[in-house]
Amino acid sequence: MSKGVGVDPMTGEAVRTGTTDIEPSLLTITRTMSPKELPPSSKLLFGRNFSDHMLKVRWTEASGWDAPSIEPYAPLSILPSATVLHYAQAIFEGLKAYRNPNGMATMFRPDKNMERMNISAQRLALPTFNGNALIECIRQLIALDRYWIPKEPGHSLYIRPTLIGTNGTIGIQPPNEALLFVICSPAGPYYPQGFKPVPLYGTTEYIRAAPGGTGAYKLAANYAPGVIAQKMAAEAGYAQNLWLHGPEHYLTEVGTMNLFVALKGEDGVIELVTPPLDGMILPGVTRDSVLTLARNHVSGKKRLAGLPEKLKVSERPITMGEVKAAAETRRLVELFGVGTACVITPVERIGYLGSDVVIPTGEDGMGPLSKPLWTELTGIQTGEIESEWNFVVTK
Amino acid sequence: MSKGVGVDPMTGEAVRTGTTDIEPSLLTITRTMSPKELPPSSKLLFGRNFSDHMLKVRWTEASGWDAPSIEPYAPLSILPSATVLHYAQAIFEGLKAYRNPNGMATMFRPDKNMERMNISAQRLALPTFNGNALIECIRQLIALDRYWIPKEPGHSLYIRPTLIGTNGTIGIQPPNEALLFVICSPAGPYYPQGFKPVPLYGTTEYIRAAPGGTGAYKLAANYAPGVIAQKMAAEAGYAQNLWLHGPEHYLTEVGTMNLFVALKGEDGVIELVTPPLDGMILPGVTRDSVLTLARNHVSGKKRLAGLPEKLKVSERPITMGEVKAAAETRRLVELFGVGTACVITPVERIGYLGSDVVIPTGEDGMGPLSKPLWTELTGIQTGEIESEWNFVVTK
Repeated sequence: MSKGVGVDPMTGEAVRTGTTDIEPSLLTITRTMSPKELPPSSKLLFGRNFSDHMLKVRWTEASGWDAPSIEPYAPLSILPSATVLHYAQAIFEGLKAYRNPNGMATMFRPDKNMERMNISAQRLALPTFNGNALIECIRQLIALDRYWIPKEPGHSLYIRPTLIGTNGTIGIQPPNEALLFVICSPAGPYYPQGFKPVPLYGTTEYIRAAPGGTGAYKLAANYAPGVIAQKMAAEAGYAQNLWLHGPEHYLTEVGTMNLFVALKGEDGVIELVTPPLDGMILPGVTRDSVLTLARNHVSGKKRLAGLPEKLKVSERPITMGEVKAAAETRRLVELFGVGTACVITPVERIGYLGSDVVIPTGEDGMGPLSKPLWTELTGIQTGEIESEWNFVVTK
Repeated sequence: MSKGVGVDPMTGEAVRTGTTDIEPSLLTITRTMSPKELPPSSKLLFGRNFSDHMLKVRWTEASGWDAPSIEPYAPLSILPSATVLHYAQAIFEGLKAYRNPNGMATMFRPDKNMERMNISAQRLALPTFNGNALIECIRQLIALDRYWIPKEPGHSLYIRPTLIGTNGTIGIQPPNEALLFVICSPAGPYYPQGFKPVPLYGTTEYIRAAPGGTGAYKLAANYAPGVIAQKMAAEAGYAQNLWLHGPEHYLTEVGTMNLFVALKGEDGVIELVTPPLDGMILPGVTRDSVLTLARNHVSGKKRLAGLPEKLKVSERPITMGEVKAAAETRRLVELFGVGTACVITPVERIGYLGSDVVIPTGEDGMGPLSKPLWTELTGIQTGEIESEWNFVVTK
């Protein structure tokens, strides 16, 4: 938690005493005088357009969190010595707001993002905060900019909370000033022409994460180093890269997504596998949602039409050797990436050590597990299926 | 190299054609109208004060490097969607300028920093540049702000070149806009009260680098994740942390410094060991300088007074087991960190798996190798010893 600073009466030294957390009741709103024209929904590209307003909350070690403010979207004034620019003291989140058929706006599982953002903050010695308080501030931002949520099916408003160290001294230490801000970008469907399974390049030249590192946290620092691996994949003709770990070539993540593999056992049971949260895997909200839907199907809490009767859900390590062997013996059912931006991305093949491992894909691009899971998940997100995962922004 | 963009006459697609590199002859200078008061040299703390001016060079994928400009030190205007804030698209360097006894200002080995900065840029798919051109721009900045180089012995002006991705679209890809800037901070001697050997905490809970990662590059992303390890070391009563790698506990770096260990062999030869540049170690300029001075002593190119006659210089892996065994058999001569900020930092003990490994230190805090190496190195840096490593800023 953020703390104020007082003086120890025994030693006269500064000590952390009080707590000033994010306080939604202090939120101020300054509306833009020049609203932007809404971009046509048909031409949206991910992360290019931003809505009229943004949320800002400043933090100092001395006083804790300032009063939050909603302001017109504008450049930030950042000292050239700010630690975010030199040492990557930065974390972020990504979540989406949807406009439901009845006009209601909702956010999908924002509590999960707040929980993870606080865990990321602790990993970098950045200040933590009350997640519900920030959700309420974001809710007011989205309510104000609700016209920026595209109405069309499959469209959404991508929300990007970011927390950066802003203190202007270039020593390497926990920051004593920080800025939390939230910006919003309207997003079209990831696959406007229907599902298109992607080819992946199995990356063994670079790593995304390692034991004792930061792969399980949503840090800015985890992303820039991956651009070169993505570039290498693109140059070799693949859409994205698949991060393989260790001499065993464990599958870990797909580009910036979590991944699932479906395998058919000799007993006819389908096993849905995702790598375990061993410290190298980002605990994705979509990953958690897919696991929960699949487990509810298995337990009978909520059966999903189309999902195999005999299903087993596993969080366990899986190697490229196992995937390749399953492909060769026709036991590989499908492989897909999951994430907030795409929801689910089916994979058609993996370039691995010089040749391609071919992955089965369904007629319309999705497989027998990904399709019912995607249908249920997007049904919940768009409000067609009622769920406690939807957080109401405005009715 | 940076490239302009043209159109392929065969396909009509955009292709990279021209090159617009950093061009010192286009440099413009805007002097500050309100020069700051120089901070008293006796009260300087590292990285707290910045000189009156800064250098800026913008880059776009479309046009390459813009004309460089020297401007008053001021906050930067950065889009909230800039990739440096979200994905740590940022690299930096650190080097020093000195005022010599005769009033001449010099920089220490700036060519090495430019070389490394270009290598770091490539690792993040940031634009590269002509290092000599940037040195000339920095030279003009330092010449303008030369009064900010404190005159007192052991003082210097710390120079911080930084390159950040500034494009305002939150896709994860090579940036199409970037900003290179250079700021300067006056620095006192690292040890104002004479050398004080520091205790280190041997970190096995977190990693700084791993094979296939980014440890060999000077990326912003390598620093924020280390703050928590430093904090843990401080809470346990140690000054800094020692990064140990793998189950063998290889010594890699000390906090943000390279390290050297001196061992006495049974034949009486002293071995000066530093971990090899295996992809996990930052190729430090001070590391390279210490290796060069020691090797010149061994080869007879330049003998250093006080350095052992029988000396062997090794770049090889070394484990905590070896260091501990050498300490127990009295074959451990000394252990020290090296870096631009401190030059040389002697170590007095290492907290390792619950107990302390004690390191010998000399009467005045430095050991039989670090002292003559430090004397030579600082003699060169301050201009008392002539060397091709000094780059003249102004006569």
